[in-house]
Parts: sequence; structure tokens; C-alpha cells
Amino acid sequence: MDERVREHAEVLVDWSARVEAGDDVVVSVAEDAHELGVAVAGALGERGANVTTLYGSAELSRAYLKGAEAGADDGRDGDGGDEDDGNGSDEDDGNESDADGVPDFDDDPAVERALFAAADAYLRIGGGRNTTATADVSSETRQAYAKARKGVREARMDTDWVSTVHPTRSLAQQAEMAYEEYREFVYDAVLRDWEALADEMASMKDALDDGETVRIVTERDDAPDTDIEMSIAGRTAVNSAASVAYDSHNLPSGEVFTAPYDTEGEAFFDVPMTIDATRVRGVHLVFEDGEVVDFSAGAGEDALASVLDTDPGARRLGELGIGMNRGIDRFTDSILFDEKMGDTVHLAVGRAYDACLPDGESGNDSAVHVDMISDVSADSRLEIDGEVVQRDGTFRWEDGFDG
Amino acid sequence: MDERVREHAEVLVDWSARVEAGDDVVVSVAEDAHELGVAVAGALGERGANVTTLYGSAELSRAYLKGAEAGADDGRDGDGGDEDDGNGSDEDDGNESDADGVPDFDDDPAVERALFAAADAYLRIGGGRNTTATADVSSETRQAYAKARKGVREARMDTDWVSTVHPTRSLAQQAEMAYEEYREFVYDAVLRDWEALADEMASMKDALDDGETVRIVTERDDAPDTDIEMSIAGRTAVNSAASVAYDSHNLPSGEVFTAPYDTEGEAFFDVPMTIDATRVRGVHLVFEDGEVVDFSAGAGEDALASVLDTDPGARRLGELGIGMNRGIDRFTDSILFDEKMGDTVHLAVGRAYDACLPDGESGNDSAVHVDMISDVSADSRLEIDGEVVQRDGTFRWEDGFDG
Repeated sequence: MDERVREHAEVLVDWSARVEAGDDVVVSVAEDAHELGVAVAGALGERGANVTTLYGSAELSRAYLKGAEAGADDGRDGDGGDEDDGNGSDEDDGNESDADGVPDFDDDPAVERALFAAADAYLRIGGGRNTTATADVSSETRQAYAKARKGVREARMDTDWVSTVHPTRSLAQQAEMAYEEYREFVYDAVLRDWEALADEMASMKDALDDGETVRIVTERDDAPDTDIEMSIAGRTAVNSAASVAYDSHNLPSGEVFTAPYDTEGEAFFDVPMTIDATRVRGVHLVFEDGEVVDFSAGAGEDALASVLDTDPGARRLGELGIGMNRGIDRFTDSILFDEKMGDTVHLAVGRAYDACLPDGESGNDSAVHVDMISDVSADSRLEIDGEVVQRDGTFRWEDGFDG
Repeated sequence: MDERVREHAEVLVDWSARVEAGDDVVVSVAEDAHELGVAVAGALGERGANVTTLYGSAELSRAYLKGAEAGADDGRDGDGGDEDDGNGSDEDDGNESDADGVPDFDDDPAVERALFAAADAYLRIGGGRNTTATADVSSETRQAYAKARKGVREARMDTDWVSTVHPTRSLAQQAEMAYEEYREFVYDAVLRDWEALADEMASMKDALDDGETVRIVTERDDAPDTDIEMSIAGRTAVNSAASVAYDSHNLPSGEVFTAPYDTEGEAFFDVPMTIDATRVRGVHLVFEDGEVVDFSAGAGEDALASVLDTDPGARRLGELGIGMNRGIDRFTDSILFDEKMGDTVHLAVGRAYDACLPDGESGNDSAVHVDMISDVSADSRLEIDGEVVQRDGTFRWEDGFDG
């Protein structure tokens, strides 16, 4: 086994999830993530943890959802419009369909609920065979399934969960990279000195926690200017150092983020992204009184519009994030990596994270949370309360900073 | 997808496990069983069941157990003989080791217990990449793990569980067959008219239920004779028709079995078997007063001796089984298939199945249950209470029977 796979497993188990002897750990292994799964199982055995392994297969999910669609169609035909299914039982409701043929999923699946309720930690290892494996499942069916599984998702989020990926050919393809090249990329991002990065990120967190307003400015010849200001007074930044000990649940991570409000100005996002399988590029947003009042995109504007129209919260910012992982040196069309890249900042419309808010207070609420990324490596500055904290990608505590 | 894979999934879900809408189903998918896993997920979606998918990887199990061994060694070294691990906690007991370095596994793993307790059905789809994937795990570690997981196993057995295999190259290799040839073999065994076979097997069950003694005789020039008699009075035969509705948990199945006692005589088993990774051939057993008093084997006699010495019950019969699946036409070194083959009978030393016993009565008890198979296609007869029921493989209700 490649030594880097073993190191990846150790970072995941020890630094990220902080697994201890006796912990009950659920591991989900994607179709082509077997090798990292083996390394993680070995590390968990050595730590004296209990392990339950799920098969995180997008192709099985697709088959299940398509099967449910077929069952819902059959059910509708069989019922002939009669709401009573004829067996007089309320329990057999798993396969009923509503009027439009969308499956009616059980919103309290007993096994998964019990599974996550009993788990101390959940390690999700992505890395399938086809990033578009569920492309032909209708969005109505996906939404119905996601809605029914809200309880399971919440039980999962209540564990010490961490999400990572094993480098696969399918992910290399999505990143437009050769397989070996992509493996180098992933291990550069994952196998960092996390303790040292956490220390550095603490400086950024302190600056944000102490500050009241953030302003981001970029001025470039080849793109619309960004000049946007937002309030962060009373909000707490998260030092997302790829460990549950830092309220951070992604490996790799390496960003500091907070929950802004009262946004004014306009921002341009030069990094492409994928929204609901649509490629979106060159997003431009104009904010007034905290809300998006105008927008455009060079490609995928309809997908952007659909996000912004989801609910009132989808037009307000939920996150300001500052990428600080310099092991990530290119965009790979994966938010797990892109938003943590050094020399980038991102803003998300939609839901804010509770960790950034005072206890008991709720921030911007929305069914969506869509990150948009800007390269700030040149012609750019980030100010807190009027003081430049980052210029052209360099932070004020770094060598070469030119305030 | 090969239509036979889809049919296999339908037999498993509908005939074997009797899954209904709203059922909570746990599916375990082995490393190379992805394709059947996809078909099963589709069928379960169509039936309106909930699905939780486990990854049944022997390589992950091996890594976990080897990791636990390494942890136990570390623990022993680290403790320096001191029984107190220094952290003053009784909870962190998952990684302690006993004196001989064998891992001390948690005997109440919360997640798996909760998982199976909440499940209505459990579908195990075998089919890994290497049937000897755990060969280098010590037998002490395996036994410690199996012992610790007794509760999980019992919870699993309390569900409507069914075990099957997807044909893989690794299983083809174990069967000494080409891959395409092995696929034909598996589907011939699995895709039967189970309803018709269940009807036929009912005749055998009736004969055994009504009978008091069974005698099996084979006389061949090239092998030791078999002439063995056993009592079955008061015992109930199981019509193992590959469905939980028949107390049958294997797909394929196709055998009728009961729990004999008071065995006298001698028996020769000409079908090779694998006991604890050792190939065993030409087993000869001599019974007096229900117990094995003499034994020999053409190969693997030590492995046989070790089975018979496990405990007192290991020297008595736990099962008499009559193979009736004529879709299985050769031995493949897999008990899932071998013992169901038409024209064979098998006897098992060790544990008897509760389903064969009067309510509340316990039969032969042992930690082992080892099946041994005889070809009865020629020079052979099976008598119940002195009446010939099967001669040279042909049952008395079949054409060509020569009583």
C-alpha cells in the first residue's frame, strides 16, 4: 500500500475525528475508495474502536431511487386514483405515491436512525466511479428523498463526522487531471502540518472575531471589479483546521469562515462552479441592504437564478470564508478542495452555520448554501475595520506583506 | 445489466426474504458483488422498502483484525505489565489486551447491535476478490472476535436473513472453473422454480417427519462402504426451499434436513471439503452409541481431529441433510452449493438446528457444525424405517425409481 494512503487514514482517524479506544465508528466507503477504507479499518482496529462499514455507492443509490420511481408509478396505476390502498394498514406506507408519481419515502427509516444515534463518529470516504452516476434521477425524487432523510442527516451531524475523499480516476477526470497527477494533488492538500496551519489560521480568526466590518476589493482589467462590505460584529469565526476539535468536518480543510450580514456593494466570482449539474461561470452579484438586487453570470445564469429564488434567505449571505490551505494550488471543480485553496476568498448565499452565531441566536436561514469563489492572488485586498489584512494573497503576518 | 442478475435480485427480495413495503432492510455487499447489489437496491426501491447498505469486505475485516493485533501488542508493551492503564477510566477498554497479546474486542458494539435490532431483513451478498483474504489473521484473534460478536450475530439471526453470493472471479477460481462457466453454474442453482421444488421437497419432509430411523448404505469397489443408522423419532425436518417462509436462509438452497441422534455404524464421505483452510478428503467415521469412536481421512486428518476434539457435542451428529437441488451438478468447494446438490446426502457433526427439535427441547450442542458430503448417485440407498426412499439418487416419487 502507498504510504500516503496510510498517512491519510491516520490524519483522518487521529487528527480529524479524534477517535479513541471504545468509540463506535461508522465508516462509509465509496465504490472506488476501498484502499483508503482498508487503511482506515486498520487504524481503527489499532486504536481499539468498533467499526461498522457502509457501502457509499452512488450507483446503488441511483438504482434504489429509480426503483422507487418505478414503484410509485406502479402504485399510482394500481390504485386507479383511489387513496385507500385496500389493505387497511397505515404501516405499509413505504411505497405509496403522491399525485405526481414522485415516491413517498419513509421519513423515519429505523435502521439508519438507530445506526447514527449509536455512533460516536462518522467517517465518510468519497471516491466513486462516476461523479454523474445519479444524473438521470429526477430532481423531484432527489428532493423528496433528501427531505425524508432530514432526521437521518441530523443524527449523522450529531456525531463527530468527517468527510474526505480517496483519489479516484473519476475525481481526476472531474478535475481535468491525470490520475497520478490528481493523487499528488490530493495528498498535498491532505497531508499537511495541521497543527501549524491551525496556529496560523488562529491569527485570521482573531482578526475576524475582533472586527466589525469586512471589505473586499479587487480591481482587474479583465473582469468586473469587486467592492463589497459586510458586517461581522458579534459573530464568531471558525478556525476550520480539519478536525472535530475545531468544529471542522472536512479533510482537507484550511479555511477560516464566519457569518456576515448587512452586505453592500458588488462582487465578481471568477472561479467556475457546478450548481445542480450545471456549469456556472463569471457570477456577478449586486447587494443592497443585505440582499442580492441584481445578478448575472457568463454561463449557467438560469441555475444561479434558481438558487437565488429558492427562498428569501437565498438572496442573503450565509458565509464569508478565507482559503488558507496552500497545499491546494489549483481548482478541481470540487468544493471540498476549491474553497480551501490559499489566495482565495468565498462568499456563500444561503444558510449560515450555527457555530458562527452567539448561543441561541439563528443566522440567515435558507434551504440552500452555495459557495462562490474569487481568486485574490493579485490586484486585491481584504480589509477589516479599514485595515488591510490580506493583500494580493499575502496575509499581514506573512513575509512580503505590503500593507 | 445481465437479465439473470436482475432475476437473482428478484428471487432474493421476493421469494427468499419476502420483503414488503415499509420493511427496513440491511444489505451487505461484498467487494465484487456490486452488480447484484445494484439490482437488489433497485428491487427494494420498487417494493418501497428502506435500505441500509453495508460493505462486506474481507480485506477491511483483515485490516481491522491485524490492526487490533498490533494495538494489543502495543498495549502490552506500553503497560509494562501494569494492569492500570494510567488514565483511570474504565470506559476506554476497547484496546486492552489480555496476557497473550490477543485483542480484547468489545462484546457489545453499540452500532451493529442497534442496526440489526432495528432491521426487518438482512440480505448478505457474498462475492469478494480473494476467498483467502483473511488467511494471515491468527485463529486466536478470529475466535476472540467471533466470540465478542455473539450478540450481534444473534440480533442478525433474529431478522429475516438470507445469504447468497454474486458470481465473482475469486469464487470461480475456488470452484476451479472459468468465470463464464461459473456464472452459468450459479444461475442454474439460483434461478429455479422454487415453488415446484418446495412441493417436491415436501414429500421428503413428510417421509422424515413420519419416520423413526434412517439408514444409509453405499457399496462401492473404490471406496469404504457406508452403513449407518440413526434415530429421527420426534424430530421435525426443515423443507429448506430458500425462503424465510420455510425457515430457510440460503439462496440457493434445496435440501431437506433434520436432527438425528443415537447414530450407529460407519460412513465414508467422498466429497472433499475445506476445514479451517485445510483441504480434507476421504473422511471415514465410525459411530458407537451415537458417538464417533474412530476416524480417519485420506488428507487433512489433523484438521478433522481438531474438529472432533472441540467439545463432546462435536463427536455426535447434528444434522442429516438430503440434497435435492438438481440445478447444482458439480462440487465447487462451497458449502452454500455443495450440500444442496441433487444425488447427495450430508451429515454434520456438531450443533443441531432448533427448527428440527420439539419446542423448548435442545438438541446436540457444540461450538462447531461441520458438514460432510457423500455422493449417492450410484450403488447407494436411503431407507426410512426399512423402506427404501431413495436408490442411486432417484426418489421413490420420481420416474425410474427402482425400490
